Amino acid sequence: MRILGIDPGLARVGLGVIDTSSPYDLQVVEWLTLETAAGLPLGDRLKEIRTDLDAYLREMKPDLAVVERLFFKTNVTTAIDVAHARGCILLCLAEHAVPILEPTPMQLKSGIAGDGGAAKRQMQDMVARMLHLATIPTPDDAADALALAVYGALHAPTLQTQAS
Amino acid sequence: MRILGIDPGLARVGLGVIDTSSPYDLQVVEWLTLETAAGLPLGDRLKEIRTDLDAYLREMKPDLAVVERLFFKTNVTTAIDVAHARGCILLCLAEHAVPILEPTPMQLKSGIAGDGGAAKRQMQDMVARMLHLATIPTPDDAADALALAVYGALHAPTLQTQAS
Repeated sequence: MRILGIDPGLARVGLGVIDTSSPYDLQVVEWLTLETAAGLPLGDRLKEIRTDLDAYLREMKPDLAVVERLFFKTNVTTAIDVAHARGCILLCLAEHAVPILEPTPMQLKSGIAGDGGAAKRQMQDMVARMLHLATIPTPDDAADALALAVYGALHAPTLQTQAS
Repeated sequence: MRILGIDPGLARVGLGVIDTSSPYDLQVVEWLTLETAAGLPLGDRLKEIRTDLDAYLREMKPDLAVVERLFFKTNVTTAIDVAHARGCILLCLAEHAVPILEPTPMQLKSGIAGDGGAAKRQMQDMVARMLHLATIPTPDDAADALALAVYGALHAPTLQTQAS
């Protein structure tokens, strides 16, 4: 089973892919980011994200996508920017009929580090260890995407498409 | 020149179309809403919005789209839902290469009623009068979309695609 973790963003979308046959067998495939230029109009940046993700889905053919649920207490402007991008990402996944799991940030931390308040570094260490990586993946967006993919692998037995 | 006003939403997208040759010549073409079912997964609702809007753009071929900029002080969850939909709408407009004007709610009110704090009813009266409509269009989402289209007509001389 191939799982794609996606860390949504407007400037940068983190992608992390793993193959798994069980929660004890996690094989990292790759991690990367899609980037858009800040100078472009918003619609064009969103179009770029969709075009790139569409091509990536055709190539990688994931069986499951894990896209973090947005949770913002403070900066609403940033939340809206990210949500524009996230909407296009969910749209693209739906067009490819890829099932989507949408954990909250707390579910993600709790599901991987056993602690809903785990620090970023603690999460990254845990993910690197579970994937047998000698160093922590960079940039953060890609590391976060791998964490989401690992979360999907651990929770695949209870897999279901989330209505939202 | 054909102008499409769009009031973004996840459950309901308001659309209003006018033809204009000058700010003194506003011809209403139609108004309507696109709707999505609450029970569907989020990705499928976004896909529905894109599919319907894509077909609508092919049919109506607008020269300009006016999509209100989101501005939320309070309910962030609603803001995120609407922003998911708005992202897909901007993406679809960019795919059709339709120029986009993105007024803030205050610019819209100020631009139509001459008062950035105008009440909803005052705006609707003004739009109905400018479009020579005997009654106020319903539902509100469609009326808001028509107001956005009128805003576009009044500001077409200073028309430019907005980077955001």
